[in-house]
Amino acid sequence: MAMNVTQKLIVSHLVNGRMRPGEEIGLRIDQTLTQDATGTMVMLEFEAMQVGRVKTELSAQYVDHNLLQTDYRNADDHLFLRSACQKFGIWYSRPGNGVSHPVHMQRFGIPGKTLIGSDSHTPAAGALGMLAFGAGGLEVATVMAGEPMYVRMPEVLGIRLTGRLPDWVSAKDVILEMLRRYGVDGGRGKIIEYFGPGLDDLSAMDRHVIANMGTELGATTTVFPSDDAVRRFLDTQQRGEVWREVKADADAGYDQTDHIDLGTLEPLIALPSSPGNVVPVREVIGRPIYQAYIGSSANPGLRDFAVPALMVAGRRIPDHISFDVNPTSRQLIENMIELGLMAHLINCGARFHQAGCNGCIGMGQAPATGKISLRTVPRNFPGRSGTIEDQVYLCSPETATASALNGVITDPRTLSMPYPRFKEPERLSVNTTLLLGPLENSEGVELEKGPNIKPLPEFDALPDRIEGPVLLKMGDNISTDEIMPAGASVLPFRSNIPEISRFAFSRIDLDYYDRTIRYQKTGSFVIGGDNYGQGSSREHAALAPRYLGLRAVIAKSFARIHAQNLINFGIVPLTFENGDDWRRVEQGDQLRMTGLVARLKAGEPFDIENLTRNWAFRVGFALSQRQLEVLLAGGLINHIRHIRQTAGNTAP
Amino acid sequence: MAMNVTQKLIVSHLVNGRMRPGEEIGLRIDQTLTQDATGTMVMLEFEAMQVGRVKTELSAQYVDHNLLQTDYRNADDHLFLRSACQKFGIWYSRPGNGVSHPVHMQRFGIPGKTLIGSDSHTPAAGALGMLAFGAGGLEVATVMAGEPMYVRMPEVLGIRLTGRLPDWVSAKDVILEMLRRYGVDGGRGKIIEYFGPGLDDLSAMDRHVIANMGTELGATTTVFPSDDAVRRFLDTQQRGEVWREVKADADAGYDQTDHIDLGTLEPLIALPSSPGNVVPVREVIGRPIYQAYIGSSANPGLRDFAVPALMVAGRRIPDHISFDVNPTSRQLIENMIELGLMAHLINCGARFHQAGCNGCIGMGQAPATGKISLRTVPRNFPGRSGTIEDQVYLCSPETATASALNGVITDPRTLSMPYPRFKEPERLSVNTTLLLGPLENSEGVELEKGPNIKPLPEFDALPDRIEGPVLLKMGDNISTDEIMPAGASVLPFRSNIPEISRFAFSRIDLDYYDRTIRYQKTGSFVIGGDNYGQGSSREHAALAPRYLGLRAVIAKSFARIHAQNLINFGIVPLTFENGDDWRRVEQGDQLRMTGLVARLKAGEPFDIENLTRNWAFRVGFALSQRQLEVLLAGGLINHIRHIRQTAGNTAP
Repeated sequence: MAMNVTQKLIVSHLVNGRMRPGEEIGLRIDQTLTQDATGTMVMLEFEAMQVGRVKTELSAQYVDHNLLQTDYRNADDHLFLRSACQKFGIWYSRPGNGVSHPVHMQRFGIPGKTLIGSDSHTPAAGALGMLAFGAGGLEVATVMAGEPMYVRMPEVLGIRLTGRLPDWVSAKDVILEMLRRYGVDGGRGKIIEYFGPGLDDLSAMDRHVIANMGTELGATTTVFPSDDAVRRFLDTQQRGEVWREVKADADAGYDQTDHIDLGTLEPLIALPSSPGNVVPVREVIGRPIYQAYIGSSANPGLRDFAVPALMVAGRRIPDHISFDVNPTSRQLIENMIELGLMAHLINCGARFHQAGCNGCIGMGQAPATGKISLRTVPRNFPGRSGTIEDQVYLCSPETATASALNGVITDPRTLSMPYPRFKEPERLSVNTTLLLGPLENSEGVELEKGPNIKPLPEFDALPDRIEGPVLLKMGDNISTDEIMPAGASVLPFRSNIPEISRFAFSRIDLDYYDRTIRYQKTGSFVIGGDNYGQGSSREHAALAPRYLGLRAVIAKSFARIHAQNLINFGIVPLTFENGDDWRRVEQGDQLRMTGLVARLKAGEPFDIENLTRNWAFRVGFALSQRQLEVLLAGGLINHIRHIRQTAGNTAP
Repeated sequence: MAMNVTQKLIVSHLVNGRMRPGEEIGLRIDQTLTQDATGTMVMLEFEAMQVGRVKTELSAQYVDHNLLQTDYRNADDHLFLRSACQKFGIWYSRPGNGVSHPVHMQRFGIPGKTLIGSDSHTPAAGALGMLAFGAGGLEVATVMAGEPMYVRMPEVLGIRLTGRLPDWVSAKDVILEMLRRYGVDGGRGKIIEYFGPGLDDLSAMDRHVIANMGTELGATTTVFPSDDAVRRFLDTQQRGEVWREVKADADAGYDQTDHIDLGTLEPLIALPSSPGNVVPVREVIGRPIYQAYIGSSANPGLRDFAVPALMVAGRRIPDHISFDVNPTSRQLIENMIELGLMAHLINCGARFHQAGCNGCIGMGQAPATGKISLRTVPRNFPGRSGTIEDQVYLCSPETATASALNGVITDPRTLSMPYPRFKEPERLSVNTTLLLGPLENSEGVELEKGPNIKPLPEFDALPDRIEGPVLLKMGDNISTDEIMPAGASVLPFRSNIPEISRFAFSRIDLDYYDRTIRYQKTGSFVIGGDNYGQGSSREHAALAPRYLGLRAVIAKSFARIHAQNLINFGIVPLTFENGDDWRRVEQGDQLRMTGLVARLKAGEPFDIENLTRNWAFRVGFALSQRQLEVLLAGGLINHIRHIRQTAGNTAP
């Protein structure tokens, strides 16, 4: 059978199930990636599994989110992660080394390998011909323990690229075009595979931009072939020896195909407050801006900083504009200095920040009230910038920089300067000073747990009967940023579930936490709309509500990762069989599910009683046998413990 | 009369009083400096004075403290400050331009001039032969309005410097030696003036280090002559034309003298948690550290970064050490890049942060729990780093970097490398991109007040009769930290008096605010013991209670600065004539003062009626004529308005 790249990657790692869209498959995973905001919890979960050292070919832990350190918590977390890496045999990328996705691609990415990461933008590694998934932390911990990763076999959406990008149009505009076409849920249940002659116009880092933000389409992941562009990339990173070709067979097919002629693209921009609100920049030119922001895993490459640097060289940013430069790695800064690019940025009046995620996840650089911020970041969900009523637009580095120079939203094609095409040097400065390899021998290494690092809560098995109130009713496209905010006041509690739970749903309803207090033991429900739980893979969006007594979410539909996270922590994800019933359940209604275990095992839709309205409505669910077992056990940790005990497989 | 530098500076600016230690003098002030954490209130106060544009030769507003921007408040404040600068004729140093003290010295410092700043390290400008004072915000606003600054004439402590600094010993060790000798209060009531041949070994930026931290000695300010070293400094800053010589007369004397032979100094270090706990580094070598931190206004010069850069060149910081580089200005970064120094720091594994105060004032980089942090900053008060139980040591850049390289506290003299003496280039790159000059014409400029910036409340003149309850009775040594707490939950409201008032006295009695609600219009009292209002000079400790209706504090005795702050906001500070009466007034008692204006003018003790207990007690007060006028006007802002109106001096 002729295979596309996706199929080749899956076949070579398939340990369970068949490659038929919709069926659950188990995949052997070669590498894992964790970042600090999710990684502390992963390490606590991995510790709880009592497995000893990681069983993967390579696991890497990055510190890129919690860099503000306004008190001891972040610093304590960093020391905890370092000790966990030494104990469990994991690479440790120190604070300041950079953002996980580009650093992983540069230092560890290998064509043909699989990767799972506790960060929703992990698919960025698809740029190298890898099969890379974002997942909740617990799934990553499970993979670190040597278990396969489970996922429903997605459809493969093939995007044929032709032509060449015009001047002032770059990779960001390609993914914005995809978002314009498909919206934030158009990729759900799909792996997006790019192919065709247009690939020749996209460097590996350009492809990273596209694969990274495939997540915003709701795609399971994004895949590119490993071709000469990938080899060139690995060569500049002094890792050419790991390159291998991974290409689709000549007559390979896709479940669905689409076509983008790169030559027809123009600068695009996503309006507040969704990556799916895409329009041509020319339609919104002239709006005054407060801030232009370059950096983040969505535009992490040297060219993404070099082009802005060349654009501002000898120029000056207007005095009312904050031009924030967020380098993605230490290595990037070093190369920027060597190539004379950093001087241009400093000279024009940019604010230069430390290497890390920074404002992309609300860690600083929040815009002023009601002011427009143009950012090259992947997401503009409401409030993610740190400013509740923010006005964040997503665009390319070219558009952001042009707008910075003019002080208003600007189509970069209208600048009176030639497009500064940047050719990457053949050999970059590579420096691994802040990258700490796993210890050969972990004996005697103790986990360093500061006072803010609390043990994981224990959860009970799924009860047969759940009765309780609907404590919150929500609309469509609720993101995990709204379910469990990030930002400087919340992220320090990522390793402290009792404390972080106080912030659950606080972006939507400040009183949610107070309402849960009566029902933390007896259980409660929330109601969601379509695409519930989109966005970030953070498992705290399931773990914290579960800690507060949430036992079931009833929604019109779920985003994949979040649905899995709910199951992993013993919360039942149910869908309205009749979408109109969403209107008929109100916040405060008392609901009851009985005979639940038998109903879930039966696999058929069943009725939930609305005691307040004396009426019942039908809900469905789609659980694999494995997911069912996890749910009944009360979550994945209980489940893993159970199978390890059964197998006598517990580490000493 | 032969005069020292201090006397020359005072004489040339004296508008009131005589130069006798202990007597109040009024000084004409040429320049003001404000930073963002105090500047928002200064601008609101200046606005309330209705003076129009500033009357100083130069006023400059810096944004260097609140750079984290985790929500809209900081960003809104920056926009407010920018608009205030444009409206009032003030220079605006934008976020990212750098720390106020070094930037002011580089761009605006002029030998022979006077400066007042709403930041306690303002005396750093003494390095240029200026007379520079730190003060509360309202005093700075008053000076901006054209009024003199009042201070009790200090004694002058002359420090004669001889010899040359040995290798690995630098300016920081000179001020640490002063702190070793005099402790944190040895400079109180004194101006410290350095003289002697040892000055030739100290550049202007070295002197900045010493003058800056004179504040830690409790000194009123620190003064250096303006000599060739100052001329060289101004030349490199391309401002040589403002240089003038300011030197002590050959036979000038001092109230007190001391001597430091620079050649005998060795690397010193201040142990936690006071700048006065100074010991030789060699006594504490070998202690494992978590962090080494260079930067801040206490070591802001190019050499303070260049020497560390040359020390780490080609070396690597151990993987468990956080080596935090906090550049003090945008200009510094630019010169570091040009001189090839920045590459060394990035390459060795340093974490490079944005230009600003950062961790020095607890804005990031907080150390881990119980771990040692070596810092070149001026202060190590408990918890100032952001970590409550911190272990912060103060030392030179040489000691911090040597310890970073070794991972333990290290006497830099024991390193096996030659001391990298750094010679500053004769001409530095000067770039004022982020420095915004005052507008020629402010017409039509509106103040941009975000939702968290509230106008300064209007206060009425002192009524002739005050009747109201005692809403709080307190004991001895109540500090302004108890009257008006700081901390992360309170500081964001520093430009919002209605909100910050909710925290007034909350450390002592959570119900105080609620009790005030009935009496905010009619007035109320509080009772204090001895030394009421000790500690920090924060003016909110008077402003917020006044907003809540407090009209008089009756105490056994007052701390000096707080008593002045009470007067400045129209609260009458009264003392029990008979200390025992403190016992006989209870919280809740209804008090009445009548004929108050005449009584205050008479300057004699008078009786307050205790209506609840049908009894009266005698109180005294000590007000200068000027203080009396301020109090009667209802505070300093009203007073300034009044004298300006009388003089026909009101702005259009």
